[in-house]
Amino acid sequence: MLRNDYSEIAAPQVLEALQKCAGEQNVGYGLDVHSKKAEKLILERFGLFENEAKAHFLAGGTQTNATVISYFLRPYEAVIACASGHINVHETGAVEGTGHKVYTCPSADGKLLPEDIEKAVLLHADEHMVSPKMVYISNSTETGTIYTKAELLSLRGVCDKYGLLLFMDGARLGVALTCEKNDVTCEFIGEICDVFYVGGTKNGALMGEAVVIKNKIDAGSFRHHIKNRGAMLAKGFAVGIQFKRLFEDGLYFELAKNSNRTADIIRAGLNDAKIQTIGNSPTNQIFINVKRDLADALIEKFGLELWEDCGHSKTVRIVTSFATADEECEKLIGFIKSR
Amino acid sequence: MLRNDYSEIAAPQVLEALQKCAGEQNVGYGLDVHSKKAEKLILERFGLFENEAKAHFLAGGTQTNATVISYFLRPYEAVIACASGHINVHETGAVEGTGHKVYTCPSADGKLLPEDIEKAVLLHADEHMVSPKMVYISNSTETGTIYTKAELLSLRGVCDKYGLLLFMDGARLGVALTCEKNDVTCEFIGEICDVFYVGGTKNGALMGEAVVIKNKIDAGSFRHHIKNRGAMLAKGFAVGIQFKRLFEDGLYFELAKNSNRTADIIRAGLNDAKIQTIGNSPTNQIFINVKRDLADALIEKFGLELWEDCGHSKTVRIVTSFATADEECEKLIGFIKSR
Amino acid sequence: MLRNDYSEIAAPQVLEALQKCAGEQNVGYGLDVHSKKAEKLILERFGLFENEAKAHFLAGGTQTNATVISYFLRPYEAVIACASGHINVHETGAVEGTGHKVYTCPSADGKLLPEDIEKAVLLHADEHMVSPKMVYISNSTETGTIYTKAELLSLRGVCDKYGLLLFMDGARLGVALTCEKNDVTCEFIGEICDVFYVGGTKNGALMGEAVVIKNKIDAGSFRHHIKNRGAMLAKGFAVGIQFKRLFEDGLYFELAKNSNRTADIIRAGLNDAKIQTIGNSPTNQIFINVKRDLADALIEKFGLELWEDCGHSKTVRIVTSFATADEECEKLIGFIKSR
Amino acid sequence: MLRNDYSEIAAPQVLEALQKCAGEQNVGYGLDVHSKKAEKLILERFGLFENEAKAHFLAGGTQTNATVISYFLRPYEAVIACASGHINVHETGAVEGTGHKVYTCPSADGKLLPEDIEKAVLLHADEHMVSPKMVYISNSTETGTIYTKAELLSLRGVCDKYGLLLFMDGARLGVALTCEKNDVTCEFIGEICDVFYVGGTKNGALMGEAVVIKNKIDAGSFRHHIKNRGAMLAKGFAVGIQFKRLFEDGLYFELAKNSNRTADIIRAGLNDAKIQTIGNSPTNQIFINVKRDLADALIEKFGLELWEDCGHSKTVRIVTSFATADEECEKLIGFIKSR
Repeated sequence: MLRNDYSEIAAPQVLEALQKCAGEQNVGYGLDVHSKKAEKLILERFGLFENEAKAHFLAGGTQTNATVISYFLRPYEAVIACASGHINVHETGAVEGTGHKVYTCPSADGKLLPEDIEKAVLLHADEHMVSPKMVYISNSTETGTIYTKAELLSLRGVCDKYGLLLFMDGARLGVALTCEKNDVTCEFIGEICDVFYVGGTKNGALMGEAVVIKNKIDAGSFRHHIKNRGAMLAKGFAVGIQFKRLFEDGLYFELAKNSNRTADIIRAGLNDAKIQTIGNSPTNQIFINVKRDLADALIEKFGLELWEDCGHSKTVRIVTSFATADEECEKLIGFIKSR
Repeated sequence: MLRNDYSEIAAPQVLEALQKCAGEQNVGYGLDVHSKKAEKLILERFGLFENEAKAHFLAGGTQTNATVISYFLRPYEAVIACASGHINVHETGAVEGTGHKVYTCPSADGKLLPEDIEKAVLLHADEHMVSPKMVYISNSTETGTIYTKAELLSLRGVCDKYGLLLFMDGARLGVALTCEKNDVTCEFIGEICDVFYVGGTKNGALMGEAVVIKNKIDAGSFRHHIKNRGAMLAKGFAVGIQFKRLFEDGLYFELAKNSNRTADIIRAGLNDAKIQTIGNSPTNQIFINVKRDLADALIEKFGLELWEDCGHSKTVRIVTSFATADEECEKLIGFIKSR
Repeated sequence: MLRNDYSEIAAPQVLEALQKCAGEQNVGYGLDVHSKKAEKLILERFGLFENEAKAHFLAGGTQTNATVISYFLRPYEAVIACASGHINVHETGAVEGTGHKVYTCPSADGKLLPEDIEKAVLLHADEHMVSPKMVYISNSTETGTIYTKAELLSLRGVCDKYGLLLFMDGARLGVALTCEKNDVTCEFIGEICDVFYVGGTKNGALMGEAVVIKNKIDAGSFRHHIKNRGAMLAKGFAVGIQFKRLFEDGLYFELAKNSNRTADIIRAGLNDAKIQTIGNSPTNQIFINVKRDLADALIEKFGLELWEDCGHSKTVRIVTSFATADEECEKLIGFIKSR
Repeated sequence: MLRNDYSEIAAPQVLEALQKCAGEQNVGYGLDVHSKKAEKLILERFGLFENEAKAHFLAGGTQTNATVISYFLRPYEAVIACASGHINVHETGAVEGTGHKVYTCPSADGKLLPEDIEKAVLLHADEHMVSPKMVYISNSTETGTIYTKAELLSLRGVCDKYGLLLFMDGARLGVALTCEKNDVTCEFIGEICDVFYVGGTKNGALMGEAVVIKNKIDAGSFRHHIKNRGAMLAKGFAVGIQFKRLFEDGLYFELAKNSNRTADIIRAGLNDAKIQTIGNSPTNQIFINVKRDLADALIEKFGLELWEDCGHSKTVRIVTSFATADEECEKLIGFIKSR
């Protein structure tokens, strides 16, 4: 199945780490030693010192987005996002559910442009309109594209100019930072974002997302807010153990590399089969538009998700994961070529 | 450590069940075969047919309470609870965060009385006051007590009389239903409640709570609501697998029995040591009021939670779990007797 | 000043009606005889019997929109509106503040098309997306245009097809129903909408909007909701008296006719001066795009609102009201011709 | 009718002031000259300079409480109030509707005690509980009592000690500040509160409440918040004109004095008739407990509100207003004496 990057329960190393702690007793709510260690490892990896930032462990992406955004916005403030952004399209109104408008900009490739942010800010000139206060981006984006260093710098510039917070949804940060076309480091992410999260669910964890918040933007009561949102796990250590394992030796990035590597195999095969990918994603999501019957066959045989029904053709999405084997890719390509 | 019933990662059987599925691929969001099977097992156990009710798997207790309550109430409606209820005291305003008042009744033993509910309803007579619409109880309660069949029947009666929904927080339903003093069956719970949840986190699961909603009260869009609240797990199967394991052979209740059995050992020892327990809990939470220095020693040595500082004495809470060994209980009693 | 239709305190007849009641005592919260009488008059005027619908009096437009929309939607449901709709652009996120997404469709002329609604519904296919449940339109629209009978019928058709509620924001319903191009009756509005409001603030009242809700869509607890939203006036009779006066002899429509009549004078004058109006509004809002210096002079001299700065030219908005005198219109036209 | 202090439409002077402006045009949303002047007069009267504070005009009490409280609290923060406080009992959950818990302290006389606030703060020790951040008091209170200077000073002390904001609901501030037993000045209110409102609706205005916020606690975006809550009136000048009139020559206090003076007449008469008042209110609300048949007669004849049904007796509330005539009071007393 090449349907998603969260179809397998967890990477074997992560399961093993959980198993190892089976006999232990830990204090609850993320105050345990594993979570502390995981926090330290993540902050270090992203070039942040312990007194500069905090890491918090939540259970899932939508929960994390809603919790983070509602923490930083006052009731009349809004978050700016791409029209295709996850918070706008695929979270059943979770952000609006916290009382905030998601102001959207059109985007060809899932990436937000500084000029669109600037326009949005200037448009919201008076008290009859929401005040944009935060910029939401995801890396990699909904369509698998990634931000370059230059792009992120110019986003940071516009945020600084207008006093906006920059929030990066890193549900798929692993594949973004390890793909071939990437030119930013973890440390750069740590430097340029006010808040970001490192996704576990889509990169080999059983579940969990690690939110990193810089202290300078007041993370003081974030734990109160997590609890208020129903997002504090009693067995917080269950997530802490996983992130400790993922970051103690670079496993997080190794798992992501497999996603990218197998996606590259598929991309090469598609190229060979003269099938163009849509949108130039360099990461683990690949979009192709093919004839209806091929699309239907791929959906049935490989569990692909239908992205868009264009009448005589269909766009389908192929996703690889930490667990994808080369053979699976070859099988897919073989099948396509055989048609 | 006798601090809590969620200090251990999970029962070995649950971990093993997760491990067994390591190679599998499953569809996301709780639509997988494990979750379906777990739902079926739970509904059957509680005497409900598949067309009568649905079970949904969430990650934690506060999340479940806020999600359930906000699903059934309209903006001007309130939930009635004990003043000591979890939703009133220990959820950082999560229910109010969804926009609803928690109307509280005083309670000596953590249980709600039908006459208090009736008084609450009659008091809220006009449109300048909230409309009570739901009754929240927990079984076992915050202080470890349980509801009898007669008590539940009279709660149901007052709910029927005034058109209120009865919601049972079953974070510790396992110990309630398996303790010696219990006189209600699973089937009775299924019959008498409009909605209830079966707690996993505090009874051997890695995490997870199973919410059961009767179809007659419109559970039709509950999945939309779960997602809107950020409570839908991408790897829903991770919880489904656990509940399937817990309910396929009665393991859920076996684990709870160990909590109660070891609590009984402690109760007997305390009795022997002439230390009275407070509040008559027959389940896995035991409260004792002892001199400061003994309390402090117990807190340090056994990780007990301080419940109330009464000046010259302190009340501490002892909690047993699925994993508590007899020796731990004897050690505690021995320590107390030695003082 | 031709800036707005809410620059004058109230129509003399309305002020006089308030003055007349100065010696009286009335019960509060809209339960008084004036409000009851006003409700009856409005329901009759819109062809609705007392047992078919209820009218409620609120203080302002944004308040009314937020109160109505949040009453009918459940947390995960959304309202569909034009991108230029008042609730999307000019209410500082009030609807999102109640927890609901405003899903927007682009629109050339401020009107919503049935095909866009249908597309929106079909797009929101699963539980990862909000459920559209209500259609918000305004008549006249933000840009002064009005809906025809045929258009409203086809909107009703798509609402019926997909189980959507049709809500008409009638902040400027008076000018819509009395302008020359209008082909719908009050009775038709009453028939075709599930809920609508009759705007007072922008049509000669001191303040106030009359919300009409059909009983069949459960208006039973709307008064509770009004209070919960802080929108119930202690002196509800103060609004009731005004609407009674406005509807006892057709004054409401007479006032609106003056707005349209004077707007027509301006339109004729502009035509004469070879200045094209933008957007074809037949009601009391007129948009013209003129050179910067003329625009600036009009803004300064006649208080016009700047609508859009297009660089070398500017679009300004002219608004007439119940109080606009013919001379004011002639002065404006004279000034324009003199440049 | 001695039912309420908001049964008359408005003081004649206020109506006259509105009438006087009938020919005028004003800019909307409270940015007009009348509102500016009213703001200046109020700030001056309460000893505050224009650069120290801002005044905003809203339409009603519940709206004002919900708007103010939700402006200053973050999602996990709570407001402390008396159990009998208006926000807790009579606002249909409006504050909870904004997402915040109202934490209540019992109170014999409608007044909050510093020691109860302190206890509340100390109780909320960790992130599993809401953070109290604001103290809500009303002056006069729900039962007509008033705060002394000493009491307010000690409330201020506990607020300073724990970083709490002090918010005074002044729906009936007029009668509090002009009653005989009062020992605080307007200037003292201005000094001691972080935010307070001066009630118009219950003291001779057609409608309106004037919220005063000190700049040091960040009133910067309050207008955005007013709009987001649907509480910004298009014809803001309609309220501004009234408050200008009420504060340009002390009319506000003259109106309140009539309420107190006529209440004193009734108190004297009751004393004469050997009927004890309940709760020692020195302001315009008087509570008496009388036999059922007398109570019923008073309710029918004088429109009194039933406060509590005690079986063989009933407690009823008598309220005087700016418009209450001496004869009405004498009629009431005469009636009581005749029974």
